[in-house]
Amino acid sequence: MIKDVVDDIINKTKAELVTREKVYDGGFVEVYEEKYKLPNDKEITKKSIVKNGNKDASIVIARVSDDKYLLVFQNRINNIVSVEFPSGYIEENEDVITGSIREVYEETGYLLSDGELVDTFIPNIGSESSKVHIVYLKNVVCKNNQKLDDDEYINYMEFSFDEISYLINNNYIQSGGNKLAFFYLKDILTKENNNNVLIKR
Amino acid sequence: MIKDVVDDIINKTKAELVTREKVYDGGFVEVYEEKYKLPNDKEITKKSIVKNGNKDASIVIARVSDDKYLLVFQNRINNIVSVEFPSGYIEENEDVITGSIREVYEETGYLLSDGELVDTFIPNIGSESSKVHIVYLKNVVCKNNQKLDDDEYINYMEFSFDEISYLINNNYIQSGGNKLAFFYLKDILTKENNNNVLIKR
Repeated sequence: MIKDVVDDIINKTKAELVTREKVYDGGFVEVYEEKYKLPNDKEITKKSIVKNGNKDASIVIARVSDDKYLLVFQNRINNIVSVEFPSGYIEENEDVITGSIREVYEETGYLLSDGELVDTFIPNIGSESSKVHIVYLKNVVCKNNQKLDDDEYINYMEFSFDEISYLINNNYIQSGGNKLAFFYLKDILTKENNNNVLIKR
Repeated sequence: MIKDVVDDIINKTKAELVTREKVYDGGFVEVYEEKYKLPNDKEITKKSIVKNGNKDASIVIARVSDDKYLLVFQNRINNIVSVEFPSGYIEENEDVITGSIREVYEETGYLLSDGELVDTFIPNIGSESSKVHIVYLKNVVCKNNQKLDDDEYINYMEFSFDEISYLINNNYIQSGGNKLAFFYLKDILTKENNNNVLIKR
C-alpha cells in the first residue's frame, strides 16, 4: 500500500524543531528563524515568513454568465499591473465561502451566492505555511458598484474562457495560483460538457 | 481585439512607484517597502519580500522510466515533511535546464539530460516577484548516489502517475507549484497517448 510506504519515509525524514524565534516584525510581514535537528543529527536554520498573521486567502472563479468570468486588474508589487481572478484574505470570523463572496462583491460589485471549495494549496511551501483556497462561485444574486477601500484601486472586466486562455498563454496572467485555478476551471467545464452530452443521449 | 482592451485597462490601472526602501535585511529574506501613487491620487504602501536575492527556482518533473517519476521528501518550515517534485534555485551562472538537471542530480543521484521548459509562474504575486519554472526531464543518462550538502536531508522515491494522483488527492502534496506541475504532466501524457493512438491507426 502506497500510503504505508510514504508514511514510513515521512517519519524517517522528520526533523526535530529545536527553537522558533521571531527575528523581524514588520506588521504585515514577520520573519521567524526555525532551528531543526535533522535525522542525521546535523542542525540547520530555516527562515519562515508569516504574512498577515498567516491568514488563509482565496482565489475565486466567479462565473457571472454561461461563458463569462470576472478578472480584476491591480497594481501589485514591483510596479506590475497583474490580471487575476478576484482574491483576498479570509477574515477570522468568516468561512472560506463567505469570505470569497465578500471579496468578489467588494472588488467587482457582483454578489454571488453558494459556491464550492475546489482545492487548497500552499503557494510557497519552502518559506511560508499560509494556505490559499480556490473557490468556484456561479450564482449571480445582483450587481452593485464596487466597494473598495480608500487605498484600493481595482478595475475588473468579464472574460470568456477562451479569452482567459489567451491571457494565460500570453503571460498576462502570471500567478501560479491563478494558473492552477484555470486548470480546475477547465476540468469543471469538461465535466459539465460530458454531462450535457450524456443528457442529450 | 482582446489584447488592446486589456492593455488599455492595464494602463489605466498602473500606479506610480514613488519610493522603494529596504526595511529588513535578514540575508536569505529581505523586505522592501514600496510607496505608490494610485491613478486616483491616493498613496499606498506595499511590502515586497525578496528571497535568496530574487533567484529563479524550478520544479522538475523527472521521468526516470515510462511510468516512474521522482518525488523527494524533506522537512520544510513549520515542521512539516513535504512530498514534492525535486526543486531548487537556479544559480546565476546557469540556465534553467542546466540548474534543473543539477538539482535532480544532487537530490536523487539521477543524471537526466536535455529537458524542456514547460511553464513559468509567480508563486506569490501579491508580495514577491521571483519566478518559478516547471521543467520536464525524461532522458536518464546514469544513476549515482545523492550529492547533498551537509545541512540537507532529503529522501526520494519513484512513483507512478497514479500514485502521484493519490498523493495529491490525499493532501500529501500540498504545494501549489507541484499541483500545477501535475496538471502539466497530465497534459503531456494525454498528448503522448493521442499521438500513440494516431500512430497505431
